[in-house]
Amino acid sequence: MIHSVAFIGLGAMGYRMAAHLPKHFETVFVWNRNFSKAEQHATEYGTLAVSLQDAVQADIIFSCLPTSQDVEALISGLELKAGSIWIDCTSGVPESAKNLADALQTQQVTFLDAPVSGQTIGAENATLTIMVGGDAEAFEKALPALQAIGKLIKHVGNSGAGFAVKAVNNMLLAVNLCSVAEGFTTLKAHGVNLGEALDCINASSGKSGVTETVLPQRVLNRSFPLTFALPLLAKDTGIALDLVRDAKLSAPVIALTQSLIQAASDLSPAESDFSSAVKLYESWSKITLE
Amino acid sequence: MIHSVAFIGLGAMGYRMAAHLPKHFETVFVWNRNFSKAEQHATEYGTLAVSLQDAVQADIIFSCLPTSQDVEALISGLELKAGSIWIDCTSGVPESAKNLADALQTQQVTFLDAPVSGQTIGAENATLTIMVGGDAEAFEKALPALQAIGKLIKHVGNSGAGFAVKAVNNMLLAVNLCSVAEGFTTLKAHGVNLGEALDCINASSGKSGVTETVLPQRVLNRSFPLTFALPLLAKDTGIALDLVRDAKLSAPVIALTQSLIQAASDLSPAESDFSSAVKLYESWSKITLE
Amino acid sequence: MIHSVAFIGLGAMGYRMAAHLPKHFETVFVWNRNFSKAEQHATEYGTLAVSLQDAVQADIIFSCLPTSQDVEALISGLELKAGSIWIDCTSGVPESAKNLADALQTQQVTFLDAPVSGQTIGAENATLTIMVGGDAEAFEKALPALQAIGKLIKHVGNSGAGFAVKAVNNMLLAVNLCSVAEGFTTLKAHGVNLGEALDCINASSGKSGVTETVLPQRVLNRSFPLTFALPLLAKDTGIALDLVRDAKLSAPVIALTQSLIQAASDLSPAESDFSSAVKLYESWSKITLE
Amino acid sequence: MIHSVAFIGLGAMGYRMAAHLPKHFETVFVWNRNFSKAEQHATEYGTLAVSLQDAVQADIIFSCLPTSQDVEALISGLELKAGSIWIDCTSGVPESAKNLADALQTQQVTFLDAPVSGQTIGAENATLTIMVGGDAEAFEKALPALQAIGKLIKHVGNSGAGFAVKAVNNMLLAVNLCSVAEGFTTLKAHGVNLGEALDCINASSGKSGVTETVLPQRVLNRSFPLTFALPLLAKDTGIALDLVRDAKLSAPVIALTQSLIQAASDLSPAESDFSSAVKLYESWSKITLE
Repeated sequence: MIHSVAFIGLGAMGYRMAAHLPKHFETVFVWNRNFSKAEQHATEYGTLAVSLQDAVQADIIFSCLPTSQDVEALISGLELKAGSIWIDCTSGVPESAKNLADALQTQQVTFLDAPVSGQTIGAENATLTIMVGGDAEAFEKALPALQAIGKLIKHVGNSGAGFAVKAVNNMLLAVNLCSVAEGFTTLKAHGVNLGEALDCINASSGKSGVTETVLPQRVLNRSFPLTFALPLLAKDTGIALDLVRDAKLSAPVIALTQSLIQAASDLSPAESDFSSAVKLYESWSKITLE
Repeated sequence: MIHSVAFIGLGAMGYRMAAHLPKHFETVFVWNRNFSKAEQHATEYGTLAVSLQDAVQADIIFSCLPTSQDVEALISGLELKAGSIWIDCTSGVPESAKNLADALQTQQVTFLDAPVSGQTIGAENATLTIMVGGDAEAFEKALPALQAIGKLIKHVGNSGAGFAVKAVNNMLLAVNLCSVAEGFTTLKAHGVNLGEALDCINASSGKSGVTETVLPQRVLNRSFPLTFALPLLAKDTGIALDLVRDAKLSAPVIALTQSLIQAASDLSPAESDFSSAVKLYESWSKITLE
Repeated sequence: MIHSVAFIGLGAMGYRMAAHLPKHFETVFVWNRNFSKAEQHATEYGTLAVSLQDAVQADIIFSCLPTSQDVEALISGLELKAGSIWIDCTSGVPESAKNLADALQTQQVTFLDAPVSGQTIGAENATLTIMVGGDAEAFEKALPALQAIGKLIKHVGNSGAGFAVKAVNNMLLAVNLCSVAEGFTTLKAHGVNLGEALDCINASSGKSGVTETVLPQRVLNRSFPLTFALPLLAKDTGIALDLVRDAKLSAPVIALTQSLIQAASDLSPAESDFSSAVKLYESWSKITLE
Repeated sequence: MIHSVAFIGLGAMGYRMAAHLPKHFETVFVWNRNFSKAEQHATEYGTLAVSLQDAVQADIIFSCLPTSQDVEALISGLELKAGSIWIDCTSGVPESAKNLADALQTQQVTFLDAPVSGQTIGAENATLTIMVGGDAEAFEKALPALQAIGKLIKHVGNSGAGFAVKAVNNMLLAVNLCSVAEGFTTLKAHGVNLGEALDCINASSGKSGVTETVLPQRVLNRSFPLTFALPLLAKDTGIALDLVRDAKLSAPVIALTQSLIQAASDLSPAESDFSSAVKLYESWSKITLE
């Protein structure tokens, strides 16, 4: 039975995810480096803003930070409660998940890597997809907590498997982004009506999340709303490439795409939405996708 | 008003597409190089199996052949009826469409490039997507004929635009096929459960037609049913790359993917389904996607 | 025996190449679209500036123009002398060489594709390398004329083979340019002394024409002297990629490099030296190779 | 003044390199994991085969092992002599060089990364190129020892810089190998005489170490003599790619080449010469480079 739950890291995703927990659990601790956000959350949702050391005494501890390095720095030195489960929703590094799982085991704490997809709207509606790596028994125990924030929740393998699936998902997003930018720049150069072409492709075999939502909702209307920063996508493509390299595999499209997204990120302001990677191609071709 | 319609080229797609025409038009001619197929169609659907020269006297002439070269060879030397419209459903070459449109105009015939997507099931149910390039007025006139076989029907631009959209669609399919093969081989190398991973990705931003249908229905079940041959996909990626090159654009992911699909095609038996391109990666990694 | 020789196209290369011919042959005609250049050449070197139709009555006709299209346009409509040999030193298209060889044969004229390498300094010193495709017997007959301008002169195959070798050579130059730019940008990012690194690599297995001459003489000293324009290198990489495509081969590094050189060319002023392709990488990395 | 020198790791390179040291220094220790090789060296060249702990009491310690991991494992736990200099000739990892330099500094020992190029023939003739990273003062002190084995000896930067230059050199070798294989397969498909084409290119701007030596001496004669194993080249391309990634740069040709060399290595027996990477392309094209 889960009596207490903690949520650490109240960013755009975490703030919304933590808001659902009081509906399901008696005691919900929240903590954030900028602590005023934790206090605001407590006021708004009836959670308890406490010190980090107090928060991590919960039965279930969620974390949601920018990178695995942040999670490692946070955990290092903390005294945890034996029997608790740490659920890390960061889009992190598989290797780091394995190390943290080993490290926490010495305190009899189980670490699950549980990155999410679904963006802020999914966090708000508790309809996130959660891909979980780590101990299967702990996954079963943690399921009620996961169900409070997600809809499709899958145990995909051992420690690191959750992070691996997220990295590959985001790599596929990146590949689709680049190839759609290439394809649609080309169509425009040949005088094709992009809106009609998009409708056709979305009814055909070449469709993807990028053609269905990213292109019409972020690119063609030139809005590029910042919900997922391009440097973070560049980081995730790097994680995917590292997985390829660790397994001594050959993945040329992934390797090339990592280069392109890195170039796009290096050329863009840090606060650019991932969809603005198409501007790399626009700068080459002097063609605007609109 | 359309009184007579002809359909030339009764392959896996054409045979099914032509079957819908008698429901909408009084006179439907069919012709096929192997003429017994035309006679069989006439028997089965009440169409009229006639000579090529007779067939092309219809108000609307559909063609559906393997390549633009086949269409050019067929049309060359034919005497057409002034005022008729030729609708070519081949997955063809944009440059060829422009040339044919110019050539037929001398006989006062309008050429529309109108490739379709939706596979044999879409042909059977008259639910094809049709992307049409060419004269807008002729498109409007031809619409009743197009509606007899398709569901989503779009005029995407001038001559060649239809072929261009189809080529880009198939290129995106090819990119997705390669990147999904790379990503899932990598996940399997790291011990991830592919079925669960696929469910997660299909609920996330990395999804595509390949993750939604090709991977589960053709690859993971090792069926690779032949519905669209890999050499034809290689041909289509070449058409897309030619569009890039003609416009002097830079499309590195497209260029690389063309190379990979060509290598996969060169290594496979000619009668391989396009989905068997994943076997290129399986041969490198000794990992089977199942 | 060769009595008369003509040289058509007195650009930076042709002007210098034609200057050697009067030392070896009695009658040397020159022609240039901007005819004052032909007259200047006559004054300077004792050649004869004549009309195009007169020039092509020579036993041996050299041409050296920007592209194969220019050569085709020039030849079309000319009346040639049976038994003469046309030596085209343009960096041209293999397919065009085959067509021109067939076309000239109807006038009993032999066409040899004979592109040169060695730059303006090689033209000045008559030390060019000449790679010749076409009829072997005509090659032997033309050898004295070729020896007047070149040093290493090779018959590499049938019509088009000379252009093919030149295109592949320039593609290798392009690949080396991109990879050296990538490698040295990376070394500089890591604080390595580029001059010392270059000395080491030039004594090691990674050396190339680019590390030996292009990088030290054009890039690191920031001179980028215009001797071979980047758009022409982009054109040549396209010819190489077409050769790959025609043979239905897979050449991913060539395909990618064509994309990158095209992007570099699209981003640069038309009058940029090929070596300025490195600026594509400099713009991405904000690192200057100096 | 250098009184004593040690050489650790008597493989194909190290055995030959260590042979020159007795000509220049009074006391030369040698050590090898398979100790009989050290004893054989002592007999053959008058060196002293001693224990590892004794060997590392020399003023200068050379090491030459397969990977940086081997060097790290070897050094860990050794007690070194303050004031000595460790010169590591392994083709290693720049990051590891920095770590080892820091670690040895605590024992007042200086670590120099000093990879070599020139193959076994260069080791035999003491004509190696040595690219050295680390403390400039230590480099000057160590110079007499380096001069005993090398000819061109360069201080290229701080710790790790030597390894970085070697990795980039080997990456350029890999790029040249792939692009030459692509280019020459294409030329052969078009009926070009490869030997004549090679002569032309070696006199032109596309030449490289690969066209000058690897292609004629290892590939076209089908000898593929094992002097540098393909899996080690794959490892080195990985080091180069890591340098790119660490600096958050975009290097698409490097990234793609790493994939291709990895695929070639995965498909080949472990004891394959690096030049057999061309067989990846031969398997695709069914064309043999001979």
